[in-house]
Amino acid sequence: MFGFNKSRKDEFFGMFDKTAQNVHEASEALLDLLEHYDDVANKTGRIKNLEHAGDEFTHRILERLAKTFITPLDREDIQRVTMRLDDVLDEMDTAANRMILFKITKIPDEAKAFGRVLVRATGLLVEAFDQLHDLKQHESILSLCVEVHTQENEGDRLVQTALANLFEKEKDPKEIIKWKDIYEILEKSIDRCEDVADVLHTIVVKHA
Amino acid sequence: MFGFNKSRKDEFFGMFDKTAQNVHEASEALLDLLEHYDDVANKTGRIKNLEHAGDEFTHRILERLAKTFITPLDREDIQRVTMRLDDVLDEMDTAANRMILFKITKIPDEAKAFGRVLVRATGLLVEAFDQLHDLKQHESILSLCVEVHTQENEGDRLVQTALANLFEKEKDPKEIIKWKDIYEILEKSIDRCEDVADVLHTIVVKHA
Amino acid sequence: MFGFNKSRKDEFFGMFDKTAQNVHEASEALLDLLEHYDDVANKTGRIKNLEHAGDEFTHRILERLAKTFITPLDREDIQRVTMRLDDVLDEMDTAANRMILFKITKIPDEAKAFGRVLVRATGLLVEAFDQLHDLKQHESILSLCVEVHTQENEGDRLVQTALANLFEKEKDPKEIIKWKDIYEILEKSIDRCEDVADVLHTIVVKHA
Repeated sequence: MFGFNKSRKDEFFGMFDKTAQNVHEASEALLDLLEHYDDVANKTGRIKNLEHAGDEFTHRILERLAKTFITPLDREDIQRVTMRLDDVLDEMDTAANRMILFKITKIPDEAKAFGRVLVRATGLLVEAFDQLHDLKQHESILSLCVEVHTQENEGDRLVQTALANLFEKEKDPKEIIKWKDIYEILEKSIDRCEDVADVLHTIVVKHA
Repeated sequence: MFGFNKSRKDEFFGMFDKTAQNVHEASEALLDLLEHYDDVANKTGRIKNLEHAGDEFTHRILERLAKTFITPLDREDIQRVTMRLDDVLDEMDTAANRMILFKITKIPDEAKAFGRVLVRATGLLVEAFDQLHDLKQHESILSLCVEVHTQENEGDRLVQTALANLFEKEKDPKEIIKWKDIYEILEKSIDRCEDVADVLHTIVVKHA
Repeated sequence: MFGFNKSRKDEFFGMFDKTAQNVHEASEALLDLLEHYDDVANKTGRIKNLEHAGDEFTHRILERLAKTFITPLDREDIQRVTMRLDDVLDEMDTAANRMILFKITKIPDEAKAFGRVLVRATGLLVEAFDQLHDLKQHESILSLCVEVHTQENEGDRLVQTALANLFEKEKDPKEIIKWKDIYEILEKSIDRCEDVADVLHTIVVKHA
């Protein structure tokens, strides 16, 4: 279909798969931190390790890209999708970090709900990258992108409930500042998933 | 000029027009909310409805795009301009929402001024999309883009005055946090208008 | 190499050089403001002047682009890299402005550290644009991009230390809000440098 050899294609798409799975694993580690808020140093350390692994995947893809003459997708799209995936992981790592930095002792239910949305959104990305191996599956990739968009709407809704409760119940301005910050980072992590879906959408539309 | 048939072109550009007009209508609804802050539930509801209508327009354009073989502009540009327009509406809807969520009772003059800038900026976008039907009008589209940029500068200036007054006059940290948040969302709405103008700029420069 | 004449190429690349040097000069002016916090009105005025000069450079490049038939790089890349460079300057100018707006009287060490990272990051961009004149130097441009990324990581680390200290030591919520805002703008300035590096990366990869 694209005039590049299959093994080259599978190599890139296989690297995408691993990168997406790593992001998904980080979302599960973040959810575990949020739902079972103990052993915090170890759990945030695990997320940090996954973030480093993500940097390594990104680096390897971009290095491969620089050395490859004919690529299975436009060079810019490969670069963009790789970087946007890495952004998801960066935001989740930042969120985890803020827990320690702000000396958070207790996790509100809304934060846990964000974690679950993130697990779903990154899971959808894993599926979408898996389908990418066969670009003829474009209907199914597009519908996964729509589902990621639905998760982003859910994130919007969540941040609203979370902020309403925060301003309603919390008296200490410092705590309000801290949680508003964390909620916004969690929401941004979900937005970044949508950014990945948007690049996937572009790729699929180009090759439709 | 581009080797695609005229009706196909008019179809896409007509959908852009409607989408831009819908964004403009939402900015007028937001200004109405800010200037006449009563019947708040109904007025924010109206903005939410326009936001849903915008999602529908976006969806229809992207669906049409997926089914169209030869497009009047690069596929990525059609996708990008559509999504950036939707971002404007999303931010304005978020701003309206925060009014309710934060139980705002009174609107400061600076917020109203933001509303007026948004009406102007989105009005310029409507004009620019209208000119897009004839890409030979590129000088005029580019000058509309420059005017959107001017509105964005005005937004920058406004957020500064607004924050200065807020920190000067408001004693309650909770109120400071709320209004800082709303001002920043209003400013972001204007920035998103500039993002649309930037994509238009790219499109025009490509076809100059 | 690209089939456009050399003087045209040097004209664009020369304009990039001047724009990047202007951004770098603004970072030095910002660092001077942060390290020697006196004569504040004059020093922020100097940054504002550099910001206006940046707007002028941007305008000139985009105008030249509109009038040039064959361009040394893809039109979109020229536009994008120009706009992203301007974003760096905008953020730094906003940071300087907030000092006055928030009536800041004393600069914490963390803010000064941000200034130093910005001087390094923008200095790397100046070098990268200088190398761009000879795209065969792509290895060296890519490694400069990696160094910008390192500075961005340093910015991330800095914002964490800065916020931790802020929440630990500061009692007044208003001061916390102000400094959280300034730190985030400084961090964003560094992120914008990385955005420029990402576009450079794309350009280099395309022409590799």
